[in-house]
Amino acid sequence: MASKRLGKQTLKLSSPPSMISNACIVGPKEGEGPLAQFFDEILKDDYFGEDSWEKAESKMLKEAVKNAIKASGRSNANINFMFAGDLLNQIVSSSFAARELQIPFFGLYGACSTMAESICMGAMIIDGGFGEAVVCATSSHFSSAERQYRFPLEQGVQRPPFAQWTVTGAGATVLAESGNGPYITYVTIGKVMDFGIKDANNMGAAMVPAAVDTITAHFNETGRTPAYYDLILTGDLGNIGKEIMLDMMQKEGFDIKSVYNDCGSMVFDGAKQDTHAGGSGCGCSAAILNGYVAKEMKKGNLNKVLLVATGALLSPTTSWQGESIPSIAHAVAIEKTIGEGT
Amino acid sequence: MASKRLGKQTLKLSSPPSMISNACIVGPKEGEGPLAQFFDEILKDDYFGEDSWEKAESKMLKEAVKNAIKASGRSNANINFMFAGDLLNQIVSSSFAARELQIPFFGLYGACSTMAESICMGAMIIDGGFGEAVVCATSSHFSSAERQYRFPLEQGVQRPPFAQWTVTGAGATVLAESGNGPYITYVTIGKVMDFGIKDANNMGAAMVPAAVDTITAHFNETGRTPAYYDLILTGDLGNIGKEIMLDMMQKEGFDIKSVYNDCGSMVFDGAKQDTHAGGSGCGCSAAILNGYVAKEMKKGNLNKVLLVATGALLSPTTSWQGESIPSIAHAVAIEKTIGEGT
Repeated sequence: MASKRLGKQTLKLSSPPSMISNACIVGPKEGEGPLAQFFDEILKDDYFGEDSWEKAESKMLKEAVKNAIKASGRSNANINFMFAGDLLNQIVSSSFAARELQIPFFGLYGACSTMAESICMGAMIIDGGFGEAVVCATSSHFSSAERQYRFPLEQGVQRPPFAQWTVTGAGATVLAESGNGPYITYVTIGKVMDFGIKDANNMGAAMVPAAVDTITAHFNETGRTPAYYDLILTGDLGNIGKEIMLDMMQKEGFDIKSVYNDCGSMVFDGAKQDTHAGGSGCGCSAAILNGYVAKEMKKGNLNKVLLVATGALLSPTTSWQGESIPSIAHAVAIEKTIGEGT
Repeated sequence: MASKRLGKQTLKLSSPPSMISNACIVGPKEGEGPLAQFFDEILKDDYFGEDSWEKAESKMLKEAVKNAIKASGRSNANINFMFAGDLLNQIVSSSFAARELQIPFFGLYGACSTMAESICMGAMIIDGGFGEAVVCATSSHFSSAERQYRFPLEQGVQRPPFAQWTVTGAGATVLAESGNGPYITYVTIGKVMDFGIKDANNMGAAMVPAAVDTITAHFNETGRTPAYYDLILTGDLGNIGKEIMLDMMQKEGFDIKSVYNDCGSMVFDGAKQDTHAGGSGCGCSAAILNGYVAKEMKKGNLNKVLLVATGALLSPTTSWQGESIPSIAHAVAIEKTIGEGT
């Protein structure tokens, strides 16, 4: 079965799992952004009927999973595994959601790379014959993330212009052994990269080297070029990271400009929404994959997408102790039909 | 390939991966305990030459991985994936170790179930044909865990008699497609369970329902009975959890007493070491699997072991917000020869 490995990081799914359903929920601010039409549910209140932001976040994740499973026509009992993680300490949004869902659970931590990490794992587990259907999910919440990673909102600390705005949102994807696509055809697993950036407000820039490394590995190991894809979508480098990304990819010999976008750049209208360098958070790529990408693939507006979710692997403690910010990116090739070379 | 699934939670590895090498490192206190002879390295100082406990913990994990890879006769470049997680917020021990190791990395969070979670995933990825060798690792550190989950040590808060003592330790396992065993023959993936315990000092009791659920599923789905195993090893219920465990398993119709032990009960001599209800932490089952179990299997003193690492999925925030403690347990069957029914 060695042919599943292409080079050091890329794996070819021999029976590409099908992305049979998707669901997403976002907060009020995301619902005022340019992608509003693609989100399944827009909350009116970011407490979502709960008494804390953390509980609201867990509820978003749980509801996204429930909605994705419902849309797949299955019951929880017919989903073999749940792969999920989030930004909160000890991934409590995911664990508390899994407590109610009662699906055998793999807890992950990949920071904002979690949507791609969970799909990489889920797709391999299905292709390996261990499950017939799995659900992959993640979430983030602006207010719980600010409180935990930076300063409680009540403190009113000013954000620097290069700061990103954590998306309040959750997304879930059901993958199955059989279905009509789109299909997960390749996954490229990231290594942890660190170019020495130490400012926890400048995470887009910190994550670029990981995205460059993973995308370069993906092209080199699959033989594909940027032109193969309709959309190469990083998440969430934001507006500043996106520019650096294009430059760095150019230096690696790949001009991705015509097919490239970033979830953090897409989710808000920076000029109107005062979101500085754009969006971030696990929920950003989760909502854009399960909202925008899923719907545009269904309509045929997108056919070949490379999702490259990026995660900054810092903690407040490591920043206080003077460490720089390591990051990781995992890539998932999602194709309407099982494409070339697969 | 549906035959790999036995019931809802158990998976049978069709080509059982081989546990080709192990390594562990523990702190000074663990090195004064009853299992000292089984640990590869005992630190003289729990700072391990670093200037913080968090950095010491990450270094332990990194060194354990390096030592396990060295013992496997491979280089980092010949290890396809690293599966790791730990107790620190944002699993920084694992991520910072992965930064230096440069092995494609899957970050996990399963609290103290991580040693089993990582082996479950690693074994499935190898059996699925996606990798030829992987490393699975975890760590914990008494002082970093107390500071993060309870109170900084400097505060001198008294610990209740049912509290467990987080093990300072790390362990790493290299699994490979081919080798002379012991083999990972089955894995049983846990669901998140919660019986309503709210005291974050009483985690052993909180985790029992998850261990009972997973072991019961394992027996029911494989058709095995307790007598099949030489050792059923939970980690880390501690002394109090261990007693509750025996009672609850009895109620499920399984008498496991003659083959049962718990990593948290084994690691310290409670009477001499003032460790109250025993050990806990990801590093507890990691050190005991990669120290005691690996060495006793090599000698032939153990031949069939069911490792059931248990994790309490709380965070300080969920406790402050009045939530109870959800928990999870994953089981791994480790056998010297590929046993019955496989």
